[in-house]
Amino acid sequence: MDKFNLDRKLAEDTIFIKDFRLSKLLLMNDSNYPWFILVPKINNITELYELSEEEQVILMFEITEVSKIIKKELSPDKLNIGALGNIVKQLHIHIVARYETDISWPAPIWGRFDVIPYDDGDRQVTNYKEIFA
Amino acid sequence: MDKFNLDRKLAEDTIFIKDFRLSKLLLMNDSNYPWFILVPKINNITELYELSEEEQVILMFEITEVSKIIKKELSPDKLNIGALGNIVKQLHIHIVARYETDISWPAPIWGRFDVIPYDDGDRQVTNYKEIFA
Repeated sequence: MDKFNLDRKLAEDTIFIKDFRLSKLLLMNDSNYPWFILVPKINNITELYELSEEEQVILMFEITEVSKIIKKELSPDKLNIGALGNIVKQLHIHIVARYETDISWPAPIWGRFDVIPYDDGDRQVTNYKEIFA
Repeated sequence: MDKFNLDRKLAEDTIFIKDFRLSKLLLMNDSNYPWFILVPKINNITELYELSEEEQVILMFEITEVSKIIKKELSPDKLNIGALGNIVKQLHIHIVARYETDISWPAPIWGRFDVIPYDDGDRQVTNYKEIFA
């Protein structure tokens, strides 16, 4: 199997959280929201339907597993899940904890506000790593 | 099994296209984009993880089936797939054909431009029904 190459922009914009069986779980380096990204570790895939049926099923279960942990640990008002990829073509799925009090509510988060990176050693990042440990 | 009740706003804003096994396929009444919506016919569900594992798998396959038909028939540059639900709580999945020439590219479509409803008897709507027939 070829080594998986994470898209350079995804790598730059995120913090590694955990490896699932199919996907890498990343945290978007934007403290405006608890904003996670699942990236199936398969090269040269842009659309969901390009995954095999087996991979589609695993990905769906990884999405719902991450969602349930976020729901339990972070108590969002709503989850926003999306596979967009208009800019970064490598298939990646956003899973964002939304709150009625967040700065973009009820609009989607993408492209609305400048990111506010986490501080080095931010306790929130440690916390996000712990809830998925 | 209880009769499925489609959310009133979803019903108002869309045109019925087809019943799949799990979901209704609707066309958003917005001629800015080929914008489809899949709604699992299950009452009182808001998040993907509330579906049973079997329903999650069927939904994933219905998403990819719809995606493949859109890709083949409408040749988009990218598909945008999302489960947001910040306003309409009933679980529904957007599947939008995006083009580098569309009015919102490369931004997401949600909440950007006023909808432009299709005209009565618009040939485009007939075309969309036919590609899923």
